[in-house]
Amino acid sequence: MQPRLKISIRVLCGEDIAMGPGKADLLEAIIREGSISGAGRAMGMSYRRAWLLVDMMNRCWASPLVSASPGHAGRGGSGGGARVTEAGLRVLAHYRALQSAAGALEQGADWQALTTMLRACPLDHQSGRAAAE
Amino acid sequence: MQPRLKISIRVLCGEDIAMGPGKADLLEAIIREGSISGAGRAMGMSYRRAWLLVDMMNRCWASPLVSASPGHAGRGGSGGGARVTEAGLRVLAHYRALQSAAGALEQGADWQALTTMLRACPLDHQSGRAAAE
Repeated sequence: MQPRLKISIRVLCGEDIAMGPGKADLLEAIIREGSISGAGRAMGMSYRRAWLLVDMMNRCWASPLVSASPGHAGRGGSGGGARVTEAGLRVLAHYRALQSAAGALEQGADWQALTTMLRACPLDHQSGRAAAE
Repeated sequence: MQPRLKISIRVLCGEDIAMGPGKADLLEAIIREGSISGAGRAMGMSYRRAWLLVDMMNRCWASPLVSASPGHAGRGGSGGGARVTEAGLRVLAHYRALQSAAGALEQGADWQALTTMLRACPLDHQSGRAAAE
């Protein structure tokens, strides 16, 4: 298994996370699924959690990122469609661009140097402290 | 309050975090304090937690990042000095360089565009959903 460089990018608005890895994935799921409930289901999260993430995004940004149409009776109360607005698409694109630029660090000399200094992984957690030290 | 871009960089070795923000800060605290217990104290963490972080680092990297001398009787059992090895200094420098390069994203067009799209923050959590939508 290769060592990995994990870079998490979050846009903070005070203490609130206006955009981050999970919210960006949720926006893309809403684009695919056409509803908050469908997107939540596809991501294995509750409707309530998906709705809260959307609500947070819509309150953090000057324009809502997701526009929801009201649910219909007979669709379980959590029905109704949702779409990612033009503002949402713009925010998503800029966020993905930041991630992509950060990912370029994996091509740089610092990461290359670090990979050569790591022990083969994963560690063997069964044997306790490695004997080779 | 200005919106902030928070970029977290972690070096993963399998599921283990070989280096991250907390471990880098701990290395610097060990350099300053000269011991694991002193570094933990300065960072407000228990000796046990500081020791576990050091142990994880020493097991993830091919050479130990921290070299500890045995404790002395009369210093409470958690005494004894510790120093960051040359390998530790190299890993720390490369990690800080990655952070610094990632931080340059704040000068880029994508982050600038995002800042103009954020609502003034922090949000007013008392008033519930913002009325302006």
